[in-house]
Amino acid sequence: MRLSTRNQLTGSVVSLAPGEAMAVVKVQLAGTDIVMTSAVTAESVDDLGIEVGKEVTLLVKSTEVALGVE
Amino acid sequence: MRLSTRNQLTGSVVSLAPGEAMAVVKVQLAGTDIVMTSAVTAESVDDLGIEVGKEVTLLVKSTEVALGVE
Amino acid sequence: MRLSTRNQLTGSVVSLAPGEAMAVVKVQLAGTDIVMTSAVTAESVDDLGIEVGKEVTLLVKSTEVALGVE
Amino acid sequence: MRLSTRNQLTGSVVSLAPGEAMAVVKVQLAGTDIVMTSAVTAESVDDLGIEVGKEVTLLVKSTEVALGVE
Amino acid sequence: MRLSTRNQLTGSVVSLAPGEAMAVVKVQLAGTDIVMTSAVTAESVDDLGIEVGKEVTLLVKSTEVALGVE
Amino acid sequence: MRLSTRNQLTGSVVSLAPGEAMAVVKVQLAGTDIVMTSAVTAESVDDLGIEVGKEVTLLVKSTEVALGVE
Repeated sequence: MRLSTRNQLTGSVVSLAPGEAMAVVKVQLAGTDIVMTSAVTAESVDDLGIEVGKEVTLLVKSTEVALGVE
Repeated sequence: MRLSTRNQLTGSVVSLAPGEAMAVVKVQLAGTDIVMTSAVTAESVDDLGIEVGKEVTLLVKSTEVALGVE
Repeated sequence: MRLSTRNQLTGSVVSLAPGEAMAVVKVQLAGTDIVMTSAVTAESVDDLGIEVGKEVTLLVKSTEVALGVE
Repeated sequence: MRLSTRNQLTGSVVSLAPGEAMAVVKVQLAGTDIVMTSAVTAESVDDLGIEVGKEVTLLVKSTEVALGVE
Repeated sequence: MRLSTRNQLTGSVVSLAPGEAMAVVKVQLAGTDIVMTSAVTAESVDDLGIEVGKEVTLLVKSTEVALGVE
Repeated sequence: MRLSTRNQLTGSVVSLAPGEAMAVVKVQLAGTDIVMTSAVTAESVDDLGIEVGKEVTLLVKSTEVALGVE
């Protein structure tokens, strides 16, 4: 499926902190030392078999990205 | 100011498509060929002096990051 | 690609109001008279060939869904 | 109160998974077999008396709806 | 309708910048000099009769609120 | 860092409900009796030393603010 979601970044899971309702997943972007954080439902983590080492795509709608300048 | 926002990625603006209310800004992440897209108010683009070549930080709250697996 | 995004609803595009930066797309859910509205970048509308009649999937992260009760 | 929120869908609660901070609520849209998922604060679930069988309205701002095409 | 949306702030519209797809509305919170900004669809602005001086409620889901500390 | 985020409101923390993955933080806006609610990762609460009485800034992107009218 092609997505309108402009930000699609691949990487692998480096940590997973599950809660009862939500889970926080950290992903290192492929070929970089950038680590991004995702908070998704605990259900979806189970559903997708998310675990440390798994290859994933991070998906971020452009309206959710703010900007900062020094 | 330190932020709760878990995803803070630096890069430089590579394109800017202003609309009347909103603007779409593309940013190449520093040291990578990854280009991310941000949709912010046209006002904030003027306010922050956003233009091609400008160094910026992309800010994404972890609850806004979904995951995909092949 | 399987997504953590819990809400994936199929339907067809019934209207498209493009702006310079963003576009507003209305989609009638398959087998219902429910019409949902999506605001995405104008770029993504072009990129995905979104037009009236096109079959699409609406994607909504569960953290973006609020609830109301009478 | 009339809302700018373009997506207002009615249905009834089919499951509720409370966590300490957040809760995940599943709602079957009226007259359909479509089940949507909402993640809201545990506080709001108590506040609104959300329980299985309760009639609710799902509220989704259009900027939070992405699109996919096959 | 009672909402799960934890942040409901009342005020009056002090400016309105309509675009083709979206519109940016500024609202001064009642009894304060705090001005908040909302970006909603241009359609909803027409639909709700939003204009300068109109009394409105600003609605923000708690998952959309980040924190900063000095 | 100057932010594109249009809504930056200062206040002090009045309550903190930590969960395993997420935490719900309530903040009273300075000089008002308005209390806002933020849901952020439990990690960020620790990272920023968020506790009752702490001065914080609430950050809300304008695209996350909906409007209601009576």
